[in-house]
Amino acid sequence: MKLWEQNIRKVKPYVPGLQPKEDNIIKLNTNENPYPPAPGVERVMEQMKLDKLRLYPDYDSTELVNELAKEKRVDPEQIFIGVGSDDVLGMAFLTYFNSDKPVLFPDITYSFYDVWCELYKIPYERPMLDENFRIVKQDYYKENGGVVIANPNAPTSICESTEFIRDILEHNQDVVVIVDEAYVDFGGASSIDLLKEYDNLLVVQTFSKSRSLAGLRIGYAIGNKELIEALNIVKFSYNSYTMNTASIVLGAEAVRDKEYFQNTVNQIIEQREKTIQELDELGFTCLDSKANFVFATHKSVPAGKIYEELQKKKIYVRYFNKPRINNFLRITIGTEEEMNQLIIALGEIL
Amino acid sequence: MKLWEQNIRKVKPYVPGLQPKEDNIIKLNTNENPYPPAPGVERVMEQMKLDKLRLYPDYDSTELVNELAKEKRVDPEQIFIGVGSDDVLGMAFLTYFNSDKPVLFPDITYSFYDVWCELYKIPYERPMLDENFRIVKQDYYKENGGVVIANPNAPTSICESTEFIRDILEHNQDVVVIVDEAYVDFGGASSIDLLKEYDNLLVVQTFSKSRSLAGLRIGYAIGNKELIEALNIVKFSYNSYTMNTASIVLGAEAVRDKEYFQNTVNQIIEQREKTIQELDELGFTCLDSKANFVFATHKSVPAGKIYEELQKKKIYVRYFNKPRINNFLRITIGTEEEMNQLIIALGEIL
Repeated sequence: MKLWEQNIRKVKPYVPGLQPKEDNIIKLNTNENPYPPAPGVERVMEQMKLDKLRLYPDYDSTELVNELAKEKRVDPEQIFIGVGSDDVLGMAFLTYFNSDKPVLFPDITYSFYDVWCELYKIPYERPMLDENFRIVKQDYYKENGGVVIANPNAPTSICESTEFIRDILEHNQDVVVIVDEAYVDFGGASSIDLLKEYDNLLVVQTFSKSRSLAGLRIGYAIGNKELIEALNIVKFSYNSYTMNTASIVLGAEAVRDKEYFQNTVNQIIEQREKTIQELDELGFTCLDSKANFVFATHKSVPAGKIYEELQKKKIYVRYFNKPRINNFLRITIGTEEEMNQLIIALGEIL
Repeated sequence: MKLWEQNIRKVKPYVPGLQPKEDNIIKLNTNENPYPPAPGVERVMEQMKLDKLRLYPDYDSTELVNELAKEKRVDPEQIFIGVGSDDVLGMAFLTYFNSDKPVLFPDITYSFYDVWCELYKIPYERPMLDENFRIVKQDYYKENGGVVIANPNAPTSICESTEFIRDILEHNQDVVVIVDEAYVDFGGASSIDLLKEYDNLLVVQTFSKSRSLAGLRIGYAIGNKELIEALNIVKFSYNSYTMNTASIVLGAEAVRDKEYFQNTVNQIIEQREKTIQELDELGFTCLDSKANFVFATHKSVPAGKIYEELQKKKIYVRYFNKPRINNFLRITIGTEEEMNQLIIALGEIL
């Protein structure tokens, strides 16, 4: 090993879902939205002046912040924008979690949380979900350096109630509590209403799922002004301009079309319920989903085997070969046509 | 102070140049390119399929990497893409600078370097430029945790030779040496050719200046495969998808149009030389610029005063109220028309 290699940061990265480059596949592995973004986004893109791209973007993402503030009924100073919710969450870990005590999050949850802790050398502990994959709230009553709850949780798809989150907050008033709501628009209860009561709460949401804009990388955090200011100071200490002009302008337009948003979300919820029933008829059990995916296990055929067979048929779902969840498949809810093809393929495999 | 506030990271952020929102201003304060991006960029944007934005971007930015690899005559595995060169540099600091010894960079240079060191708690030292604002290479012969050289340097605009950089590398083979070439396309000598000789060299460039795409946030690093892999591991430990689809596709198109690139760069160089002469006639001295800006001081009128007077005339340049450079103005090279107006305004002020 050369000397300069010794000072390279050692970390084991998060592994995102496969992004196959072949055509004619059914892609149900990264929880993307099967519907295109709101029609207005196309119009705004067509009108976008190319000359604007030679200038630096608005480093405060003002247009997007203002639209979100109206939509969420909070002050613009309560909103922080980032390059997808990963950027927002990663920066939040770096900003808020500088204690010697461990940050707490479940053993089964979004698998980026422990990666950020490793990257920034933040101590952490992972209380186990119970046998029904529910969070045990008492595990979060102990002294800690922060709490992170994905709600709905991933990959379990289960959403806890506002009262549950309130209980976590009641027992954790001396640390920052992050509620990661990437999937909340598909039937979950948001904790945004709790912001009035708890100044140590940060709620994180994304444009990648319910707003069909994974390709533009937009995420945001909502919290009290002091928390948001701290996040902004760290952001401006890393990269003044994280958001590009196209994402700011097109993202704002996506927020404006509330009807399209609600319609596509409703279609996905409807399709999810239909899929759960059809999977049940094939011998699967799905956890109670409030997300745009289901987490399904089959009574007799191993998940790893089904995963491989689906892939041979060019149907991609997500499989985590990890303890406790290695007999589950995480299946994104696609269009009706995609889900019909999935059910047919599963019928053939089983 | 509430208890949760005690664990918030304390850092003093970088302050970017003003981005005034008023119309009819002459903006020469953030080194943007006065010309629009290559015409092909507009065509590609018009053809971009909106439906593509619902999907996550290509996390390897393959199309953009391949175009750059051809252009720079390196392997695709030698290229790392980020959200502007700030993202690339910030991530490089976090990745490579994990020694107890100080990282070295000049006292006068891009003012983000010390901010990243503070953010990530990296020790650093800042050897002084000499009285002509040149880097003293012997200052970089001592034991250290890494070296960062902006070449051309900012805000001085001065470019050191390839032999100078080679000397720095010869004396620093046990640490990573970063050469930040944000401004190199305007007449400087790139260190890319030294990559064959030094496996600890990382060269960083950007699309924000010479390629007129500041609004899309694209930067990149070129280095040996091992260095790039380490950078990618840290990136994938922070945010799998830092680059959005629009920036990848439009950036690749900008690289393809070599003629437009060379023409606009040449026009800026020509305008720079003309501006330097006109400033000279007004009593200014400019340092020897190889950038798309000049660093100018007047023989009798204080820079701070000129800065204020220009702003009253809606002409924005950059003024750093810092020791040693507080009698200089950093003036971006704009169009011929913009520079004519600047010279007229300066004539009136002086």
